[in-house]
Amino acid sequence: MIASIDPRTGVTVEELDVAAEDLDGLGGQAQGARQELAEAGRAGRAAMLRAMAAALEDRRADLVATADRETGLGLPRLNGELTRTAFQLGLFADVLDDGGYLEATIDHPGDTPMGPRPDLRRMLLPLGPVAVFGASNFPFAFSVPGGDTASALAAGCPVVAKVHPAHPVTSVLSRDALLAGARTAGFTTDVVSLVYSNETATRLVQHPDITAVGFTGSLRVGRMLADLAAARPVPIPFYGELGALNPLVVGRAAARNRGAQIGDGLAGSFMLGVGQFCTKPGVAVIPSGVDGESLVRALVDRVTAAGAGTMLSEHTADAFAAGADRLRGVPGVEVLARGGAAPADGFWGSPLLLKAPATALDGPLLEECFGPELVLVGYDSDDDAVATLGRFGPALTASIHADDDDRPLATRVLAQVQHTAGRIVWNGYPTGVAVAWATHHGGPYPATTNALHTSVGASAIRRWLRPVCFQDVPQDLLPDELRDVPSQPRVPRRVDGVLA
Amino acid sequence: MIASIDPRTGVTVEELDVAAEDLDGLGGQAQGARQELAEAGRAGRAAMLRAMAAALEDRRADLVATADRETGLGLPRLNGELTRTAFQLGLFADVLDDGGYLEATIDHPGDTPMGPRPDLRRMLLPLGPVAVFGASNFPFAFSVPGGDTASALAAGCPVVAKVHPAHPVTSVLSRDALLAGARTAGFTTDVVSLVYSNETATRLVQHPDITAVGFTGSLRVGRMLADLAAARPVPIPFYGELGALNPLVVGRAAARNRGAQIGDGLAGSFMLGVGQFCTKPGVAVIPSGVDGESLVRALVDRVTAAGAGTMLSEHTADAFAAGADRLRGVPGVEVLARGGAAPADGFWGSPLLLKAPATALDGPLLEECFGPELVLVGYDSDDDAVATLGRFGPALTASIHADDDDRPLATRVLAQVQHTAGRIVWNGYPTGVAVAWATHHGGPYPATTNALHTSVGASAIRRWLRPVCFQDVPQDLLPDELRDVPSQPRVPRRVDGVLA
Repeated sequence: MIASIDPRTGVTVEELDVAAEDLDGLGGQAQGARQELAEAGRAGRAAMLRAMAAALEDRRADLVATADRETGLGLPRLNGELTRTAFQLGLFADVLDDGGYLEATIDHPGDTPMGPRPDLRRMLLPLGPVAVFGASNFPFAFSVPGGDTASALAAGCPVVAKVHPAHPVTSVLSRDALLAGARTAGFTTDVVSLVYSNETATRLVQHPDITAVGFTGSLRVGRMLADLAAARPVPIPFYGELGALNPLVVGRAAARNRGAQIGDGLAGSFMLGVGQFCTKPGVAVIPSGVDGESLVRALVDRVTAAGAGTMLSEHTADAFAAGADRLRGVPGVEVLARGGAAPADGFWGSPLLLKAPATALDGPLLEECFGPELVLVGYDSDDDAVATLGRFGPALTASIHADDDDRPLATRVLAQVQHTAGRIVWNGYPTGVAVAWATHHGGPYPATTNALHTSVGASAIRRWLRPVCFQDVPQDLLPDELRDVPSQPRVPRRVDGVLA
Repeated sequence: MIASIDPRTGVTVEELDVAAEDLDGLGGQAQGARQELAEAGRAGRAAMLRAMAAALEDRRADLVATADRETGLGLPRLNGELTRTAFQLGLFADVLDDGGYLEATIDHPGDTPMGPRPDLRRMLLPLGPVAVFGASNFPFAFSVPGGDTASALAAGCPVVAKVHPAHPVTSVLSRDALLAGARTAGFTTDVVSLVYSNETATRLVQHPDITAVGFTGSLRVGRMLADLAAARPVPIPFYGELGALNPLVVGRAAARNRGAQIGDGLAGSFMLGVGQFCTKPGVAVIPSGVDGESLVRALVDRVTAAGAGTMLSEHTADAFAAGADRLRGVPGVEVLARGGAAPADGFWGSPLLLKAPATALDGPLLEECFGPELVLVGYDSDDDAVATLGRFGPALTASIHADDDDRPLATRVLAQVQHTAGRIVWNGYPTGVAVAWATHHGGPYPATTNALHTSVGASAIRRWLRPVCFQDVPQDLLPDELRDVPSQPRVPRRVDGVLA
């Protein structure tokens, strides 16, 4: 039995009757799905993804109501998230139509200084069945029907998804919608299946038929699973999208010229979704003294006016409370503002604005605290600001607010965060990750366990593919995309070194 | 002191006086080199790589004579390998000129179903300093001046290379040539440096300033280092190019029509370089009965006529002798032919042709034996052949010899090996890996520790790069390649979803 709990009340609303789980059938089932995904080709998989998006839309009311009841994230946000999730499935259908993701490369036979070169043709092929661990904070966009699943299916990899205990019924309904879409598109196998318990999920990461893992969640669990994946007899790639402090730096001129506006924006960003974003700005490096005052005042006003928000689960609320206590306990840390108190029942988090001297930056102040909390650190000079920024570890994002007079600082900050961040935001806030071709959602460890690839954006598909090179293979035995005269519209290819 | 030993005699010819090693200065030194590589830009790094190639050519006589004395591989092969190594540096200069490797992607601001999308620009940036472990069997092409070094420098990553004890003087001379080339191109930092001992190399993999590792060598050492890289406080990518059985399947018609020719080619391939290739075909699945006879006869004749060959080191020769003993000891295994006996002094390996029934395929018969050894396994039906092939683990390559009548078998084999091999060779032999855009040199574990990327070919550069996304960053602060109007010739880019 898995409990579906309403976080607004803490009450178990429903119990999912989950049959005893075994993974014995995984190999055979995944093999069938893998073959069907391969035989469908890019066009067939694109049609499947679009049908899945339509199926999610068809079931929107039920999905969103269920997710709201399980997560407390509210209908507007969840409606937006479902839109995003359907859009994302469509983006990967576009990626398939385009075909550039295959990296099709052809070298015709030729002479080289080392002698004759054979005919060589390279493209990417799917790895095989993959495991996906969804996050609590995005019951659609980073869970069963989310980016990992969409990109893996696009690549041709069947998905076994771990149900997050914070939204089990949403997960089951999402899986049903995806499979209904697949059926509409003519698929007969279960291209997505679910596992429920932590114990089964652990065995899943170690299962010989699983070829890669996508994970969104905490550093602690992500690292544990990454270590398991690396220690397998056959190690497999583990794409863990974990979390980050996501530092934000405000230039002195920007603070002076539009401090209240930045304070408002920053308050909105760190309290968005009750601070439950992996891209939440956890620390802001701001000018000390009078230049920073209007920014701080705006933040204090917004936080003081804010009520407590429902958090995703008892675990999340408890972890936030404990994290906030740890932060407040660091010598030198000062509470600037608190939001309204939490109700007695349910799982709640109250916004918290802290201030810390740069000299205190250590321990809890260098770790992500998942929830509506922001630490301000003042700087006197540009050197101070750069040194403070250098104290923080790598992150998913780094943000800079700068006006013209801040260019010297901004240039230094940009040069620095190119080594430590996956996305660099100018005069904006890091929450909100666009589903687009140019998006990169990742960053050096501990932001992710694999900084080379992304968990959002078109190139997320690259995680589930490996290159294969065909040497002198006859035309009719080659994949269509590598033939001299493909039967399908030609994909972007590099031929004899030239992209065309 | 590191001994430089002549494998033809076993005599220590020279001793390298290596100062006590410490890695304390690595961080600062690598930081300087990293910055110089970045500031040089693509054009500057391309010029550096071409100057390095020229410096290797300038010192060809000395390098080749030294390598011959340390490896026993012979002047023709080593001259060819130096040509290949210089050509490879040039290929990565071409890759830099082209710029497509950056995966530059631009999404202009726009409306989406989720609201407005910011300006997003993504490209790949270098990881940082990397460690390179060269292989004994390619003292140039897969050692200090080899593909890992060339691709890492192209990416903008300084290299710390582990000297292989089988060719220490060659390694030092190669480093000197590379740095001389870099000086010619105006570089003042040591973009390549060396470490010597296994102990230092182990610490290198664990050093906080090292961001990735390229390794070519044995499964045992590769896995040990991969595990170290994964267990670091900050895990880093480990690209281990290990070894493989590299199965080769011969269709019945092909064996009937041109068995002697295939036998000759196969003999040449498995004995090439005294069998010391990671792409050496270790097992051939051939038709049983009369159809396979001419193939077997040609192999037996060639092996019987062959003399013993100098192996790279005492370790290599001992390991080959032990591996050959293990293979001969498997019940059912039959010796078909042996090459000439080895001289008393030095390190030698004598070619060995074995035959095994499919029922014996287990243990040593499923493991790579590095050296001039080949196992033949007969098949009766296509089903037999496919089942036998299915017994072997993943490999760098899989080869198929097929005539028209073999198409049904060949089609099944192709479908199967697409899941298990990195390169599929048609009517050819797996030794010989072209340095080209379409090459993929890799394969599922245990062929490599990371099947997603390649250690030969243009995309080898991808291993040392990670994406960074710039959101709303002003034009003048963007990397040149992401600006609306770049100052340098435009690189291939995907703009608003369209490759151009």
